[in-house]
Amino acid sequence: MKLKLYVDHVSQPSRAVLIFCRVNGIDFEEVKVDISKRQHLSPEFAEINPMKKLPAIVDGRFKLFESHAILQYLACAFPGVADHWYPADLFKKAKINSVLDWHHTNLRRGAAPLVLHGALAPALGRPLNPKAAAEAEIILSASLAKIESFWLKGNGRFLVGSSQPSIADLSLVCEIMQLELLDDEVRTRILGPHKKVIKWIDDTRNATQPHFDEMHAILFKVKKKLLKMCSDGGSDQTESSRKSALPSKM
Amino acid sequence: MKLKLYVDHVSQPSRAVLIFCRVNGIDFEEVKVDISKRQHLSPEFAEINPMKKLPAIVDGRFKLFESHAILQYLACAFPGVADHWYPADLFKKAKINSVLDWHHTNLRRGAAPLVLHGALAPALGRPLNPKAAAEAEIILSASLAKIESFWLKGNGRFLVGSSQPSIADLSLVCEIMQLELLDDEVRTRILGPHKKVIKWIDDTRNATQPHFDEMHAILFKVKKKLLKMCSDGGSDQTESSRKSALPSKM
Repeated sequence: MKLKLYVDHVSQPSRAVLIFCRVNGIDFEEVKVDISKRQHLSPEFAEINPMKKLPAIVDGRFKLFESHAILQYLACAFPGVADHWYPADLFKKAKINSVLDWHHTNLRRGAAPLVLHGALAPALGRPLNPKAAAEAEIILSASLAKIESFWLKGNGRFLVGSSQPSIADLSLVCEIMQLELLDDEVRTRILGPHKKVIKWIDDTRNATQPHFDEMHAILFKVKKKLLKMCSDGGSDQTESSRKSALPSKM
Repeated sequence: MKLKLYVDHVSQPSRAVLIFCRVNGIDFEEVKVDISKRQHLSPEFAEINPMKKLPAIVDGRFKLFESHAILQYLACAFPGVADHWYPADLFKKAKINSVLDWHHTNLRRGAAPLVLHGALAPALGRPLNPKAAAEAEIILSASLAKIESFWLKGNGRFLVGSSQPSIADLSLVCEIMQLELLDDEVRTRILGPHKKVIKWIDDTRNATQPHFDEMHAILFKVKKKLLKMCSDGGSDQTESSRKSALPSKM
């Protein structure tokens, strides 16, 4: 039975799993769980992931959620995956696990609420929240500074000094890509000071093309809708048309 | 060269690593990094962990931080560790990784700020923050409900249906033990509805004695100080004596 991925391209960890499978030639069936239609909250999806979050996978009789656990599992379960994605070497693997854990309470804790409170909220019928966005931006900027000064230290182009990408590069870069939904000026202000981060995003993109661009295309579509909504002033939109324009949870 | 653990018993992930090493007969040198003296923020400790957080380890020339990554590493690096702590089986390991990832953005995201804003703040010279505490309690209670209904599902006494504890049991139970710092009534109100969680805490404690109680003794000492501070009204205390009574970051 083919591996099933329950995903939505607007979800950054979904994209990381999708790109990983594509790059590594893992055959899968994509099951779209449309966040904008709140399908992730349905009783059907709760059978797959009781936490009602994306992504989730079903591999035969085995169900799994949490994107990092999924990436670790796939890297080990499919023998064709090159070692650099999640090295068998105990020390290299431990460093990658360390980045992945760090990500949860740092980069993600900054980026996700910034995008929500600084860009997406109006599309969900909620006001922008500049205070929450400013707090998130502080966490995000501190996290980007740590990536720049510590995680990208050394001669390698990728995290923890590697010369080839790992599942941690994919996870963190997909998170940062979500900033594409912000106003360009804000995004440039935040990312601009971190030259190594910008180069690393580009290196990760180049190492995973054409899948990287294909999986991220959705962001530019959503942004276009956000800008249109903004220029329309939103006054002539019904609550329902607003909600359908954008995901309710990213 | 002996494994070095950089820890403070008041830090819940430090306790998880300490108990793990003790239970598994891993020989180590304990290096106390006193959070109440802000030693985790010192330039010396930044050489060990540039993120300035506890715990961290040094094993020979290898440095590592993030408690989950440390537990995963130790379970694999020391051949005497029983398999149930972090199973070699791909599926069992994946489920444990999934709980560990989930923990970051659920249980910990509720428990840690609740203890800070609901109990510890005055000892740090900051006011209690009932609004932040109430928000954290909602996240914590939802997380405990998920542990009760999902992670402790099945016949096993431990997480993901296991009959013996894993590193995930240790990590999550040590987090919940931090609630001992709360007012007894508040703690009972929060934990009371979750009978399986209460039994599981007890099972994890029993499976890791006498080390569990030894490593948690600090919490009861800190609580006594908190209560004394409360009954004294804090008015006759200097800022400096307040700060030294309690950890600045847990």
